[in-house]
Amino acid sequence: MTFPDMLQIDYLLTACRNGALTPTDIVREVLARVHAYASVDAAVWINLVPAERLLARAAELEKRPVADLPLYGVPFAVKDNIDVAGLPTTAACPAFAYDATESAEVVRRLEAAGAIVIGKTNLDQFATGLVGMRSPYGQPHCVFSAKHVSGGSSSGSAVAVAAGLVSFALGTDTAGSGRVPAAFNNIVGLKPSRGVLSTTGLVPACESLDCISVFAASAADAWRVEQLAIAPDAHAPYSRAMVPRRLAADTFRFGVLRQKDRFFDGCIANAALYDRAIRQLVELGGTAVELDFAPLKETAELLYSGPFVVERLTAIADFYHAHRADMDPTVGAIMDGATRYSTTDVFKGIYRQHLLKQVADRMWADFDVMLLPTAPRLVSREEVIAQPVAANSMLGTYTNFVNLLDMAACAVPAGFGPDGLPFGVTFIGPAFSDHDLAALAGRFHAAAHNTSGVFRNAVLPLVDNAPVPAPGNVLLAVVGAHLKGFPLHWQLEKEHAILRATTRTAPDYRLFALPDASPPKPGLVREKGFVGPGLEVEVYELDAAGFGRFVAGLPQPMAIGKISLADGSEVCGFLCSEAVARSGKEITASGGWRYAKL
Amino acid sequence: MTFPDMLQIDYLLTACRNGALTPTDIVREVLARVHAYASVDAAVWINLVPAERLLARAAELEKRPVADLPLYGVPFAVKDNIDVAGLPTTAACPAFAYDATESAEVVRRLEAAGAIVIGKTNLDQFATGLVGMRSPYGQPHCVFSAKHVSGGSSSGSAVAVAAGLVSFALGTDTAGSGRVPAAFNNIVGLKPSRGVLSTTGLVPACESLDCISVFAASAADAWRVEQLAIAPDAHAPYSRAMVPRRLAADTFRFGVLRQKDRFFDGCIANAALYDRAIRQLVELGGTAVELDFAPLKETAELLYSGPFVVERLTAIADFYHAHRADMDPTVGAIMDGATRYSTTDVFKGIYRQHLLKQVADRMWADFDVMLLPTAPRLVSREEVIAQPVAANSMLGTYTNFVNLLDMAACAVPAGFGPDGLPFGVTFIGPAFSDHDLAALAGRFHAAAHNTSGVFRNAVLPLVDNAPVPAPGNVLLAVVGAHLKGFPLHWQLEKEHAILRATTRTAPDYRLFALPDASPPKPGLVREKGFVGPGLEVEVYELDAAGFGRFVAGLPQPMAIGKISLADGSEVCGFLCSEAVARSGKEITASGGWRYAKL
Repeated sequence: MTFPDMLQIDYLLTACRNGALTPTDIVREVLARVHAYASVDAAVWINLVPAERLLARAAELEKRPVADLPLYGVPFAVKDNIDVAGLPTTAACPAFAYDATESAEVVRRLEAAGAIVIGKTNLDQFATGLVGMRSPYGQPHCVFSAKHVSGGSSSGSAVAVAAGLVSFALGTDTAGSGRVPAAFNNIVGLKPSRGVLSTTGLVPACESLDCISVFAASAADAWRVEQLAIAPDAHAPYSRAMVPRRLAADTFRFGVLRQKDRFFDGCIANAALYDRAIRQLVELGGTAVELDFAPLKETAELLYSGPFVVERLTAIADFYHAHRADMDPTVGAIMDGATRYSTTDVFKGIYRQHLLKQVADRMWADFDVMLLPTAPRLVSREEVIAQPVAANSMLGTYTNFVNLLDMAACAVPAGFGPDGLPFGVTFIGPAFSDHDLAALAGRFHAAAHNTSGVFRNAVLPLVDNAPVPAPGNVLLAVVGAHLKGFPLHWQLEKEHAILRATTRTAPDYRLFALPDASPPKPGLVREKGFVGPGLEVEVYELDAAGFGRFVAGLPQPMAIGKISLADGSEVCGFLCSEAVARSGKEITASGGWRYAKL
Repeated sequence: MTFPDMLQIDYLLTACRNGALTPTDIVREVLARVHAYASVDAAVWINLVPAERLLARAAELEKRPVADLPLYGVPFAVKDNIDVAGLPTTAACPAFAYDATESAEVVRRLEAAGAIVIGKTNLDQFATGLVGMRSPYGQPHCVFSAKHVSGGSSSGSAVAVAAGLVSFALGTDTAGSGRVPAAFNNIVGLKPSRGVLSTTGLVPACESLDCISVFAASAADAWRVEQLAIAPDAHAPYSRAMVPRRLAADTFRFGVLRQKDRFFDGCIANAALYDRAIRQLVELGGTAVELDFAPLKETAELLYSGPFVVERLTAIADFYHAHRADMDPTVGAIMDGATRYSTTDVFKGIYRQHLLKQVADRMWADFDVMLLPTAPRLVSREEVIAQPVAANSMLGTYTNFVNLLDMAACAVPAGFGPDGLPFGVTFIGPAFSDHDLAALAGRFHAAAHNTSGVFRNAVLPLVDNAPVPAPGNVLLAVVGAHLKGFPLHWQLEKEHAILRATTRTAPDYRLFALPDASPPKPGLVREKGFVGPGLEVEVYELDAAGFGRFVAGLPQPMAIGKISLADGSEVCGFLCSEAVARSGKEITASGGWRYAKL
């Protein structure tokens, strides 16, 4: 088998399952690609796992059944502020480097799922920057242009994915480090909700805000990786359990910038691409709603022009006091700025953050997600050398506020300008919307701009929408007045139910039009041994509380129990008092309430 | 009608509804009591609402139907760091005082419910203290002893309730200010979960921790007041919506101090009273479990011997810098201590707080609530004068950590020592457990130590347990294998269902033993026109998510719909495929599954 340009996870897993590929084949291919790309860009990696260790890892995996490991043989890169046992962690600062004896909790989980760490990638020192230029290990460049920055701080991780060297890469994201370089290299950057991935084994930037993030060719791949890494960790101060929050899917509203807030730093092409992205999302069923950018902008300013600079210094205070001279000059100067603030300024900044969060939280009443540019425009290396702070600040215009306001985000490709350089947009949602956000971003990506990485490869299927509910959620089959377009459908909408499938019941169900029901509704009754056509049902997913409220609101004679579907699976569904049902007209032969002649 | 010693809410409401009392009568009685108590203790109030204004407020209420206002005519006191329009707010610091033009949001809500503000009560300056001795407006004393402190910082509020001057009082609680003075004056102090009551209109102490709290004669009264005051407030940085968390009720586990951690500062009587309280709670169905006090103690130390002193200074930084000399010397010295910390210390302290919270959160796997002494012992005024800081610190041993760890607490009376001085215990639960915590604390209070205030009056009924579900919760009637003691009851326990009532269905239901069911279970079927005995059901309350999970877990042929109870009300309940049910043996005449001979 020849390898595809982009090492998407499903390609590799399918090939391994077929026996067409082994982890050893994958390791050899990755080693060859890494070697070849070093002549294009020598600054992607800070340390690589030695070839013999990679081959030993592959051999070890080959002793285990493929089906046991959801990331069997999948190669990945790790930003060098995240520990991998047996390699140094530098945070792009040689004087700071230490040998990691244990892997970060997230790395450990992904390795346990069968993934293979290839090496540690370059970054803006201490993850302080959005350019990828602040590293003594060289500066990776945009995969499309050696003159342009890669974006940062997760510079090497983004390039490693975009150049097809690995299937996915871990980044970190405090101010946009997991999103900006995704946009600049035409890949997906998924920034999870704060606290759902452990930060144990991560060199902090701003510990109350830091998130480990995932770069991948597709939103489906990025979500798959995030999902496998999610776990509460009592050793991480900001760890939280993931309690999935659902987003509307079919008819969603999305917040967009007002014309006056559409800042692209003079790049007309990106303004047009953003406009096109909005139109494309409308075509997918969304309604654009203008949003108030002012509170988001004010929040963003807390991060570098406010006391959160103190938090950045806190992460490395001892090192800073002993080794200021050994730091990147720009990063060092940013840390110096922390002395401007008093202790009481710190608390005042935190209060302001919380108050702005109250304002931002209310925005979700107006729309389900935001669609923003990921960055105003790609900058050249020259520009950054000329203005190392100003050029960097501009890049965070649409990313800085996200973690301060406890939101999740997914950056996806959104086309190319006439200069051949990529543009990206970011879907932003409330905390814990990670899955649904990635699913929506993935739908947009596949429908509107189906390319990924330097090769502009097509991406593989979307985030899974098959009727498997998220953990803790419930599937409910409706058969009558709750069907889409029928009078009680609003009760499902009220609970943010999401249509997961349209299918049929098992054949031994009969359907009756209930006498005197208002609004008209049918009753479904199971009769052992009866063979009919099966009745059409719509299967919706609800969270447990929404489902609970829905059931609690049903009037007599309706009831909810398990029903069997045509494929043999069981989901919750509508049942009915049989005596009442059988007193009505039978409509089983119609195949469903929608088709019945009453 | 003669007034009772303690002005419990139900007495007043019932009398007003009967026409036996009017708000004017109540105001006149309160004025007389306040006047009389001034000769016992002149330091309770800082400002009183003028009599004519109280009478005008009473007259205004009398134009409205009693039934419209859940706190119709109920008199209350407000700690003087909470704004009441038309009165100064002093925070017990004359140089800081300002005229409040608007009432705090919580005061506004309680007044809208019909309650009458009587005046503003004394406190430890800027709510910094647990003694009640740090005020230029005099020092209220314990209602049982002029030689002993009242406790603080909400000193006047606690005394006003304990002396029967008002029905309830608002305090504030950052380190224990809403609990310690409750213990020292033999009343209830309910410290809500952080953020569920608005802090708008409150002079902050530590803004990220402050809670408005409620003093009352009984837990039932305190919860009633809290419930009416709960509302999200987008203007308060730490506001959160109340999402009730249920506690186990019948068979609960409670954490208690290990012998080595039982510190009563040498007071043997209190050690015995704590021991007795544990035994009494066991008699109410609880199982005592030893807890690890070390992380709680370490958390407590963050508050005064750590960077949260900086937060305290932040609240009044401008005033402090201009008016240090005008402050209470002890309070001023505490604020001076903030200069010991650097900006990075502040973040380090916050991280430590979050990490300790991860540890503490895992404790709830071992027990449902904690039962701790409220304070080691009551101290004399002399002791505090001799050692103003040390005596104060000792008082916070069992209260300081609660807000830092995001817990709710309810302090209740727990008897008297041989010296006639009161002892109190505090029930501590996870965030949002407020209702169930108050209910349990109230059960303990009523069963074990049914006295309140200086008069040692009996308290009125418990927190309401009638089958009216909390907002968002669901009532579910079970009829068979889910009854208490039956094989599937664990499914209810798993969802923390609480038994609210044992009652019967309407008479037109029939019950059948389902054939081949494992475990054995009955099927309930409604038949119009049938007249039977009604079937015994147990009605459980579940939150919506728990109910949703419960329903989603049911196998065929069971179903959940509405069923009618004997009293005509409808709740969710078990229904069943009629064909399946009627193929089994009818057991309707038995009156219930529990009584059926199969």
